[in-house]
Amino acid sequence: MNKFAFAIVSVAAMALAGCQSSTSDQKGDALASTSDALILAAREQFKALPNGPGVVPGIKSTPELVALGNMLYSDPRLSASHTIACAACHSMGLGGADARSTSLGHRWQHGGRNAPTVLNAVYNSAQFWDGRAKDLTEQAGGPISNPIEMAMPADQVIPTLKSIPGYADVFAKAFPGDKDPIRMANVQAAIAAYEATLVTPNAPFDRFIKGDALALGQAERRGLTSFMNNGCAACHNGVNMGGGMYAKFGVASAPPTELLPPGDVGRFAVTKDEADRYSYKVPTLRNIALTAPYFHTGKVWNLDEAVTVMAKTQLGKTLPQQEVSDIVAFLRSLTGDQPKTSVPALPPVTGTSARPAD
Amino acid sequence: MNKFAFAIVSVAAMALAGCQSSTSDQKGDALASTSDALILAAREQFKALPNGPGVVPGIKSTPELVALGNMLYSDPRLSASHTIACAACHSMGLGGADARSTSLGHRWQHGGRNAPTVLNAVYNSAQFWDGRAKDLTEQAGGPISNPIEMAMPADQVIPTLKSIPGYADVFAKAFPGDKDPIRMANVQAAIAAYEATLVTPNAPFDRFIKGDALALGQAERRGLTSFMNNGCAACHNGVNMGGGMYAKFGVASAPPTELLPPGDVGRFAVTKDEADRYSYKVPTLRNIALTAPYFHTGKVWNLDEAVTVMAKTQLGKTLPQQEVSDIVAFLRSLTGDQPKTSVPALPPVTGTSARPAD
Repeated sequence: MNKFAFAIVSVAAMALAGCQSSTSDQKGDALASTSDALILAAREQFKALPNGPGVVPGIKSTPELVALGNMLYSDPRLSASHTIACAACHSMGLGGADARSTSLGHRWQHGGRNAPTVLNAVYNSAQFWDGRAKDLTEQAGGPISNPIEMAMPADQVIPTLKSIPGYADVFAKAFPGDKDPIRMANVQAAIAAYEATLVTPNAPFDRFIKGDALALGQAERRGLTSFMNNGCAACHNGVNMGGGMYAKFGVASAPPTELLPPGDVGRFAVTKDEADRYSYKVPTLRNIALTAPYFHTGKVWNLDEAVTVMAKTQLGKTLPQQEVSDIVAFLRSLTGDQPKTSVPALPPVTGTSARPAD
Repeated sequence: MNKFAFAIVSVAAMALAGCQSSTSDQKGDALASTSDALILAAREQFKALPNGPGVVPGIKSTPELVALGNMLYSDPRLSASHTIACAACHSMGLGGADARSTSLGHRWQHGGRNAPTVLNAVYNSAQFWDGRAKDLTEQAGGPISNPIEMAMPADQVIPTLKSIPGYADVFAKAFPGDKDPIRMANVQAAIAAYEATLVTPNAPFDRFIKGDALALGQAERRGLTSFMNNGCAACHNGVNMGGGMYAKFGVASAPPTELLPPGDVGRFAVTKDEADRYSYKVPTLRNIALTAPYFHTGKVWNLDEAVTVMAKTQLGKTLPQQEVSDIVAFLRSLTGDQPKTSVPALPPVTGTSARPAD
């Protein structure tokens, strides 16, 4: 939409803003044309992302802790090959994720599921697609020693860090008073504290629900209305537009096998509860336009297709193309300010430091 | 050295600074004890690194060009797997290099030679260990399509970039007036322009030769003196303390086979001149303390050992351990301010963008 057209639409929307519907059957129409009503309706289901870092349970964040976390997050020497950092698959350049269906790990092994974004992950109720880690701290211990990811033997993480002399001082500053600060719990806490800073406030949608009616154009507003009316927001809601619950992939109709390969049983593997078979954590939709490909398989590269698949498998609906496009326009309004992270200078190895594996 | 000891040494050095030698046979002794004379002697062989970016021949740098270059340098989608960026092997976190003897490339292939640092590479007279690229612009085209590195087929680089819609505007701004800006020559120019900003001024040694006598302690001064007196500076000289010439590895005595495997013939492969067999570009020593492992094989992890090997193979000398330690102390004074680079947000793929290879 060019500026001129946008101004006309916005004026029209403001002119209509007084006509709020009072009965529920009029609600859909009214939402589409009045921004005040739409803002109020959206506030019932979503929350604007706060400015500033999120909070990880049990962690008191300090600048020193975050700085250490940024170093560890960026340090490929936490992997067996000294080549794969956390940041390799969760890159600030690529919306906190990577650019593949599944990531490449140690010795070019292919990961099992699409790398989820680290951005705003602090606002998820659990971590990983199957929620097997309760928070960022617990999550941070997983990929480092996962044999198909970073593949660092669990008993080598700390000796490796201790063999790089420059880390001693950085850990000491991040954990003042701790007599043996280079230990796994602290590594995980520092990474989690850093990740909690990786939030993306100020998306157009956030500005909209904070009251800036002009932050969304007409297509985005229609898409938001459609998103709520069709029931997408039943799962994708709250501050993270998702990340707060689990849902079976295929509530209304079975997804194609490519999108739901039978061998990956989802949360069932964690709970052994038959009800959780093929259930996955509902992913955040924040920054979704930056993080193709989609779904736990990463087999869908197109937001339009992702919306169409979701409508069919989760809601049993076949949406008209115009409505799909509107929802996609709305989803694009969930892209916030990307974190400004610098590449931290890492302490160098010495002749006695641990060496990478082949 | 603690602060107190350093102050005493410095005062002593200043007290001696008037006693400059006038005959050449007294020079060595005098250099060790007088900072003025040492500074003057060093200025004959070395130059302080300028503040601000270097200049790549034929490239007019602009902020827009550098910003594009930073994006391309950081974008793993320039590789076949969409996983390996330039920054993977030339990381700002690791002194502009990586943490391995040889880098891991496409499908976990091992590179042929140790990844040289990108830092201050703009001041090298040629690029790659064998000098096969005359400047950064020419160099930038190599690894992207090298089948054991990023492995992007040469004819797919531009279609891939064109398939990511957000790049159109960034290229247009970097190359104003260019009707078809997304082309290989421009990709290379932008990367080179960015790399030319990756300089590390303000090393203690730079401050010293600019006249700040206190910037080097006594061990560093002894090491500098030894470095010049033993002939190291015959090759490692100029603004980059190297990077300006080729030298046969093994001038005085043959290196062990592990350090000079016969199958890698060095610059001979480029020139076919028998005199260049086993010749390599003399690497810069700037930031050398950050970039272990050493030599084109990356088989030496220890600076002391690297100095000992060089003294023996290039100069035919067996240096006493104290002298080796002093030279290493001097080499550590070549670590400058590391570039403050942010991770650039990269334009996202869409449903029609090029897809990564397995």
